[in-house]
Amino acid sequence: MAASPDSKVFRATTTAPVNIAVIKYWGKRDAVLNLPTNSSLSVTLSQRSLRTLTTASCASFYPAQDELILNGKPQDIQSSKRTLACLASLRSLRREIEASDSSLPQLSAFPLRIVSENNFPTAAGLASSAAGFAALVRAVADLYQLPQSARDLSRIARQGSGSACRSLMGGYVAWRAGSLEDGSDSLAEEVASQSHWPEMRAVVLVVSAEKKDVPSTEGMQTTVATSNLFATRATTVVPERMDAIETAIQNRDFPAFAEITMRDSNGFHATCLDSWPPIFYMNDVSRAAVRLVHDINRAVGRTVCSYTFDAGPNAVIYYLEKDTELVAGTIKTILGEKSEGWEGPFYEPLKNLTAPGVALDQVDPRTVELLKDGVSRVILTGVGEGPVSVDDHLVNEKGDAIYH
Amino acid sequence: MAASPDSKVFRATTTAPVNIAVIKYWGKRDAVLNLPTNSSLSVTLSQRSLRTLTTASCASFYPAQDELILNGKPQDIQSSKRTLACLASLRSLRREIEASDSSLPQLSAFPLRIVSENNFPTAAGLASSAAGFAALVRAVADLYQLPQSARDLSRIARQGSGSACRSLMGGYVAWRAGSLEDGSDSLAEEVASQSHWPEMRAVVLVVSAEKKDVPSTEGMQTTVATSNLFATRATTVVPERMDAIETAIQNRDFPAFAEITMRDSNGFHATCLDSWPPIFYMNDVSRAAVRLVHDINRAVGRTVCSYTFDAGPNAVIYYLEKDTELVAGTIKTILGEKSEGWEGPFYEPLKNLTAPGVALDQVDPRTVELLKDGVSRVILTGVGEGPVSVDDHLVNEKGDAIYH
Repeated sequence: MAASPDSKVFRATTTAPVNIAVIKYWGKRDAVLNLPTNSSLSVTLSQRSLRTLTTASCASFYPAQDELILNGKPQDIQSSKRTLACLASLRSLRREIEASDSSLPQLSAFPLRIVSENNFPTAAGLASSAAGFAALVRAVADLYQLPQSARDLSRIARQGSGSACRSLMGGYVAWRAGSLEDGSDSLAEEVASQSHWPEMRAVVLVVSAEKKDVPSTEGMQTTVATSNLFATRATTVVPERMDAIETAIQNRDFPAFAEITMRDSNGFHATCLDSWPPIFYMNDVSRAAVRLVHDINRAVGRTVCSYTFDAGPNAVIYYLEKDTELVAGTIKTILGEKSEGWEGPFYEPLKNLTAPGVALDQVDPRTVELLKDGVSRVILTGVGEGPVSVDDHLVNEKGDAIYH
Repeated sequence: MAASPDSKVFRATTTAPVNIAVIKYWGKRDAVLNLPTNSSLSVTLSQRSLRTLTTASCASFYPAQDELILNGKPQDIQSSKRTLACLASLRSLRREIEASDSSLPQLSAFPLRIVSENNFPTAAGLASSAAGFAALVRAVADLYQLPQSARDLSRIARQGSGSACRSLMGGYVAWRAGSLEDGSDSLAEEVASQSHWPEMRAVVLVVSAEKKDVPSTEGMQTTVATSNLFATRATTVVPERMDAIETAIQNRDFPAFAEITMRDSNGFHATCLDSWPPIFYMNDVSRAAVRLVHDINRAVGRTVCSYTFDAGPNAVIYYLEKDTELVAGTIKTILGEKSEGWEGPFYEPLKNLTAPGVALDQVDPRTVELLKDGVSRVILTGVGEGPVSVDDHLVNEKGDAIYH
């Protein structure tokens, strides 16, 4: 005997990935709609390493106000305009399909209870908002059985957190800046699937910040308003790089991908430094990671790794699986036994590492020292797929949140 | 009885100052003639703190090849195209006046012996080439009794070391980039004399570099060739800043002077970071100095100090004499008793310092720690005059070099 809609808890659960941009999003042309000044491109990281798990549920008997519980903590949803904007857009789409088919349960009228958990500590310094909003939008869209594609939903996720739109897809994902005022053409597109170039790997060097960073929303507004160099980046440099890196991805041309990635990271941080007051996200340990990558590439005689830095000191180092020993092996040797985070789904090729990858006398000794002292944890991962629908619900059949 | 020209040693001795740019010279449009991509502007620093002392001498009986002795070490003058270019230009001007007046001794035909000493250690990390070439050109011009003005001579000094052209004058000095291919309009001009705004002070925080920097000649060529943001700086940003800072100097408007100085330093280092491979001159200690300056200005509630960084990690902090306690006092309190270099001609207002300037709880504690650990020496100085003719010869009447 099926429960009546009045007592039933409707649920949908999804995972969503983290993404790390190789062409950076920095600067909004519209702060309310989260419309960027330039297009960006990212690699979706494997959910075997990092993922957000989110259950969206609704029931007629839930308390009237929508609820959101993140990592066990109830959030004040009413104070988050961005969350409210996402939920309003999703409800409106649900209302459309309910209006056209009266047999459907009127879920749009039910209060929501959304429960979400990250499998990685916030202290890892990885922006979790992208995965978080992507999971929220995907889960509610699944709950509402919306017909919209990931591309369509990316418009909604974008309003939650700009870069969240890129976490709705796997592989290599572009966020087209678009040009329309209503933002309807500002959305994410898969440039290439994970299976097109599955060998991409990434190791994140987790560097503790000396000081709390300028939050990225505030920082990017400062840059747009004050940097004399920013307009050149947004209007000239990035469009050329977008074309070039898409070609590199299509051709699986790692050296080209790597150089564009490094140059875009440097150019983004250059506009931060050119802001007023200046914004610094990279520190001496970050710069040591830059030097290490250049030293490894020089020692090997070809480009086997590249760095990129978001709005913080952590280095994300991309490389291809075949070069694991040369890149991750060298880093592991430098960081030594005490460094954490190596084990996991991507550990296998490093397990029986005998040689140190690149001989350490090829690396500047001060670089080695800075990394050894400044990096205590890594995250070893690789390119991955987009959100996945799962049955591991965080809300039980009665509607109660389950805390893992 | 006067010595005959054959046995006489002709001598002229001058001092020359260091200058620190507030609008940076970075990028050559002609590497042989040392023609810059953009104009620049500097403050000439007092020779009571830092100076090069140079004697130019010539005698018919000197060995045939010109000699140059720097800080007691004979230099291989033939391998320094830049030195040869300066000497050839000066000799040519001497030849012109000898041709028009046959009563003059034919000094242009005599070999030169030039002896030069800095009163500051190279380890201080201050580019000594500007003062060195300015002193060399000024001393030889004096030896040759050339009628050319400092402005005219700056064209010659520029060929030795670009920024040397600005050390031929005191006060506030612009180097006009010029546009002619032969470089004849690329020269230095005094924007304002020392006496126009004599209250300008500077404290140099000497920061040891973690690694040898990319030499500036190489670095600037890399930036011009590779930075996507550099052209905007050279063609748009700097020309506007030159106008604005000249106005600030004319009006003795320290807050405007300070903000332009800080922004230009940041913009210059931004183009370094945007170069390929990236160039880093500032380190965590440099960035702590940046934060300190912003913290002091915020705590005081007005702009009382500004930072600027050349191609290295040292901070040069400008302030006005009346704000000595607030700026130098705060820095002295932070660096503590063990820091060296405070005493000297500018020490007086700090001697009986009772208050720490700005209360240290107004400064980020990590900033204090980084500066305390990373800065062991300061140079306390201020705006100063241009080269001065002196009798403190480094070559005796017999033509022998005197080593102090």
